[in-house]
Amino acid sequence: MQAARLHEYTDEMDAALSIEEIDRPVVDAADGIVVEVEGAGWCQTDNHVVEGMWTEYVPQELPMTLGHENAGTVVETGDGVSAVAEGQQVICHPVMTCGICRSCRLGEDMYCADLAFPGLTTDGGFAEYLRTNERAAVPLPDGVDPIDIAPHADAGITAYHAAKKAVSELNPGDHAVVIGVGGLGHIGLQCLAATSAAEITALDPKEGALDLATELGAHHTVNPGSEDAATEIEAITDGGGAQQVLDFVGADATTALAPEIVAAGGDHHVVGYGGHVHEPAQALVDGELSYRGTLVGRYTELQELVALVERGDVELRTSRYELGEINDVARRLEAGAIEGRAVITP
Amino acid sequence: MQAARLHEYTDEMDAALSIEEIDRPVVDAADGIVVEVEGAGWCQTDNHVVEGMWTEYVPQELPMTLGHENAGTVVETGDGVSAVAEGQQVICHPVMTCGICRSCRLGEDMYCADLAFPGLTTDGGFAEYLRTNERAAVPLPDGVDPIDIAPHADAGITAYHAAKKAVSELNPGDHAVVIGVGGLGHIGLQCLAATSAAEITALDPKEGALDLATELGAHHTVNPGSEDAATEIEAITDGGGAQQVLDFVGADATTALAPEIVAAGGDHHVVGYGGHVHEPAQALVDGELSYRGTLVGRYTELQELVALVERGDVELRTSRYELGEINDVARRLEAGAIEGRAVITP
Amino acid sequence: MQAARLHEYTDEMDAALSIEEIDRPVVDAADGIVVEVEGAGWCQTDNHVVEGMWTEYVPQELPMTLGHENAGTVVETGDGVSAVAEGQQVICHPVMTCGICRSCRLGEDMYCADLAFPGLTTDGGFAEYLRTNERAAVPLPDGVDPIDIAPHADAGITAYHAAKKAVSELNPGDHAVVIGVGGLGHIGLQCLAATSAAEITALDPKEGALDLATELGAHHTVNPGSEDAATEIEAITDGGGAQQVLDFVGADATTALAPEIVAAGGDHHVVGYGGHVHEPAQALVDGELSYRGTLVGRYTELQELVALVERGDVELRTSRYELGEINDVARRLEAGAIEGRAVITP
Amino acid sequence: MQAARLHEYTDEMDAALSIEEIDRPVVDAADGIVVEVEGAGWCQTDNHVVEGMWTEYVPQELPMTLGHENAGTVVETGDGVSAVAEGQQVICHPVMTCGICRSCRLGEDMYCADLAFPGLTTDGGFAEYLRTNERAAVPLPDGVDPIDIAPHADAGITAYHAAKKAVSELNPGDHAVVIGVGGLGHIGLQCLAATSAAEITALDPKEGALDLATELGAHHTVNPGSEDAATEIEAITDGGGAQQVLDFVGADATTALAPEIVAAGGDHHVVGYGGHVHEPAQALVDGELSYRGTLVGRYTELQELVALVERGDVELRTSRYELGEINDVARRLEAGAIEGRAVITP
Repeated sequence: MQAARLHEYTDEMDAALSIEEIDRPVVDAADGIVVEVEGAGWCQTDNHVVEGMWTEYVPQELPMTLGHENAGTVVETGDGVSAVAEGQQVICHPVMTCGICRSCRLGEDMYCADLAFPGLTTDGGFAEYLRTNERAAVPLPDGVDPIDIAPHADAGITAYHAAKKAVSELNPGDHAVVIGVGGLGHIGLQCLAATSAAEITALDPKEGALDLATELGAHHTVNPGSEDAATEIEAITDGGGAQQVLDFVGADATTALAPEIVAAGGDHHVVGYGGHVHEPAQALVDGELSYRGTLVGRYTELQELVALVERGDVELRTSRYELGEINDVARRLEAGAIEGRAVITP
Repeated sequence: MQAARLHEYTDEMDAALSIEEIDRPVVDAADGIVVEVEGAGWCQTDNHVVEGMWTEYVPQELPMTLGHENAGTVVETGDGVSAVAEGQQVICHPVMTCGICRSCRLGEDMYCADLAFPGLTTDGGFAEYLRTNERAAVPLPDGVDPIDIAPHADAGITAYHAAKKAVSELNPGDHAVVIGVGGLGHIGLQCLAATSAAEITALDPKEGALDLATELGAHHTVNPGSEDAATEIEAITDGGGAQQVLDFVGADATTALAPEIVAAGGDHHVVGYGGHVHEPAQALVDGELSYRGTLVGRYTELQELVALVERGDVELRTSRYELGEINDVARRLEAGAIEGRAVITP
Repeated sequence: MQAARLHEYTDEMDAALSIEEIDRPVVDAADGIVVEVEGAGWCQTDNHVVEGMWTEYVPQELPMTLGHENAGTVVETGDGVSAVAEGQQVICHPVMTCGICRSCRLGEDMYCADLAFPGLTTDGGFAEYLRTNERAAVPLPDGVDPIDIAPHADAGITAYHAAKKAVSELNPGDHAVVIGVGGLGHIGLQCLAATSAAEITALDPKEGALDLATELGAHHTVNPGSEDAATEIEAITDGGGAQQVLDFVGADATTALAPEIVAAGGDHHVVGYGGHVHEPAQALVDGELSYRGTLVGRYTELQELVALVERGDVELRTSRYELGEINDVARRLEAGAIEGRAVITP
Repeated sequence: MQAARLHEYTDEMDAALSIEEIDRPVVDAADGIVVEVEGAGWCQTDNHVVEGMWTEYVPQELPMTLGHENAGTVVETGDGVSAVAEGQQVICHPVMTCGICRSCRLGEDMYCADLAFPGLTTDGGFAEYLRTNERAAVPLPDGVDPIDIAPHADAGITAYHAAKKAVSELNPGDHAVVIGVGGLGHIGLQCLAATSAAEITALDPKEGALDLATELGAHHTVNPGSEDAATEIEAITDGGGAQQVLDFVGADATTALAPEIVAAGGDHHVVGYGGHVHEPAQALVDGELSYRGTLVGRYTELQELVALVERGDVELRTSRYELGEINDVARRLEAGAIEGRAVITP
């Protein structure tokens, strides 16, 4: 089958992956499944993998097929599989978990002690077929197109997970700020709007992104290119700050906003990871401020997100590309020139 | 009356405060009270105030009497006061709150929109008398000596507040790490031990502090002076890390431990604020790690801490000093040469 | 001034209250205020007070002016009042609290150790003027008519409080059931819809109420007059039951539904109190079912509800009556012949 | 092998079960295991099963081997088992779960959509061997005797689960009441003492049970045989009531205590199920009181309980009996004549 594979780390996105013919994966465990990939989202994390940014955090062996936002049709199942069947359309939770360790037993899939992450630690979905397991598969409701929903497998669930953490702290009338209305941010914003009655402010240097934010439910917008973000948010929040900030950028400049824009006792959720957090400890103490990292989300949260999609509460802006266009997608995302979310259709 | 006052910011602790005669404060509001100070704890924050570190965060006008850990006897009450009476012994929550703003109505005393902080923004308790208000006063149970309990007014409540946040995430068998077994840390450790069944590891470069930790309930100790802290904690936690870390130091070196010692999804509570947090955003994302600032605690938490003291669950190691010795105390704390908590007895 | 007062308990609603001339109340405490009542909602609880049902639970001395859902204009303030001023329009949280006891300090207004409840324990708002205190007053946003919003003072906050407890347990795709789409139920339903992405089923024997429910956001309706409620809800929830049930009726027949319609681990919130809970303990154990009483709500929750109203998320169906019509209102509510919520305009 | 089996429901405990020879179970699924039973606790629920009380709640086919509190040594494992090995000593979580349904994925083992409950729905552990699955097995720490720990498989985990729910609402100085210091109650009391700083009051009509309670950490005791429970608890709690009540009896008389002894906003946890809850809805509303059923506990909670046992925080009072004495045990428990927990050693 055709697959887009990384052979060495590079900063040159133009020729990052090579399209090549490899063997189709087969089921090799009782709970294993093989999915014919219909849609596989390209994610900023793919750029980071290409650059080698993940080698410090996970075991990674090259060459490897990238792609961790996958949806398609189950074509093969292991002996012990009962929750899905051949022919069923599914979206794949990004990790394969053991189901037995204490983290799995707590429902904390991402902390599984024996986890594989197709596209980061094993072959992913920029290919005609993907091997994963039963525990990763969430059946799709009727009428949901796998290509349209694929990016929810990682972008969606990550945005939802962060939004859910924020919503648990948001009362009607409280303020939430969404930093970065891109692939993840435009989902997170809709999750906030669907599950809370918070006042939502979107912050993005692109006017088009702010227009999209308004369309998707933001009550206020701030353009840090032309306005002073802290001053604007102070005005919007009557001086109190935002109880919850979702930072889908995670750059030095965005994490540095926290002491100025987060309300006392509030949280700055670090979802994007382009830069650093660098603050005096006293800045965290003074406003009882937290920087809270957020890592993908639980299997059950992907179920919840699919329910939101089925309700029509979250729409995804996507553009489709063939497997052969993948390096072009990589390059354009790096340049900030992708509208919505790019989905590869192998 | 005699009071120890700061006239200008300085790094010289030897002569930081001057002992002088000023007018005794009087009640000037319906909910006001005046307390004859019996004990007033000296806190690392007092050193920071002397150095001018708080000017960026709170309004401060010099000269000012320092001292925010106060206990004593009520000697005067305003017309509207009903909760305490003259002659009653009390420990003073460190801030005077309005009781009317939304934060106060939520029970979040520290976020009061109209707050005064004796010893930081108004005259404090290193003096014979202190003006505060009814909302700050927690009556002492019979048999509790104000001098012994005074440091709980800030050191105690801050440690308890942080421990309470941690305990809400700790299950039996989980691991907690206490960094710094000094004035706050030795209280926080006891709060953890009294209200959870977590495995507690104490980390301190002083062997005496580690001995104290063991005596007070720590199950493991690590001396970062002679051992590699991350390696030791990895071994103690069977590789899983500590679900909750209470960092009573907050130095660059201690906040930098988080990515190595905090379990997936866990928290590094920043209580001390000697240095910075400086990490790549990806380090927060990878382990879903949070840096959570912690700021003193609620009035109701001081009630809860007093209940712990009354039960005998938390003992305080204190040493007593006269008002005239105050600069000596300041200097010795800066040098790490104070055992337990220093209490001034004006 | 004119006031509608209860002189003796009775089951005859036709002549329950007498309209009479009494002295206008005046401020008698530093934090006291007097409000010129513009709207005062009539509540099922008023019928219960008339019947004497509350004598067992609160101290009550007759004659007494009823009316605990009040909004109007502040006309007099005590010396210590700073949060509201004369001329300001306010909605009144139903109880006057002390602000000093531990419950108040926790933000739990309804558990205040020294509470007065105008309309239940002191003179209420079916009168031209009402005495309450600063802690009860929530300023109204511009453009909100006190007459329109008055029922939120008790009906609204009670419904919101119950809905908020439910929402904290509801994930997208979970099911919520609202039993009784009357004065409280139609508010609770909107609160659920505004702050969660749960699937909402409304249950009411009146078709008009079910039509209203659909209009306000219910996804399913069940008429227990013509359908078997348990069977219908089992079908709607694919056999899993509803994670959260809000029972605004609280009759024997509605509480008895819980073991059949509540999902494992779910809650049946008892808001209305027309009847009993009567179940074998084993029924609670088998499905880990809770019956959770709900009592009005916090002051801060009234703030949050006002924010929902200002956002346009919760609309109130009201009909207006003059003070002289009050017994007619009482009789018609008893007969189930009031559409929406009746508001008296003294 | 020898097994104690129920052939028909009866109220006669003397000859409830027959000891007979049946085939040894074998592994019949990839995740299956067979455990050689060393200890199997007799539980009040066994009496209820004998009486037919569970037929309404679970599918049950006779004859059936009873026994749902099992510990022993793994002697056979299915192909897919990796978490335990032959020869390993384990305590068995009481249910076999699928691991795949949403409840399992949430960590809510007891709500599994495809659950088997050995001793209630399939053959249990009053036999030489028990068939269960990998997901039920918690490995024992070195030095823990399976016979000593067996009752924790159900009595222990149920008591711990209820205590954990209570502890999440208990602050230092709050009050907890334990009703019934028997097989479950004496465990629940220790769990409360180990994981909270609440004031604990034990209530039991047997003086011996109250002595045990004091020994295990209760601060107050009440004998409802000779004292008025509500009056005593009012005195102990200074009139405020107990924030949390754990009712290990669940009789009409004990559930009826709730409105009198539970603090405002508190919970009456129904663990035992001998009788009914029968209260006016208004009693739940007036004090915002909840009756919360409690059903066994999660797999991860059994891990936590084993951690408590290993720490020495929870000791179990047991007495040992041979399989042939089982009907005698049943009869004596019915008569209240068993001290601590009876363990059968097949």
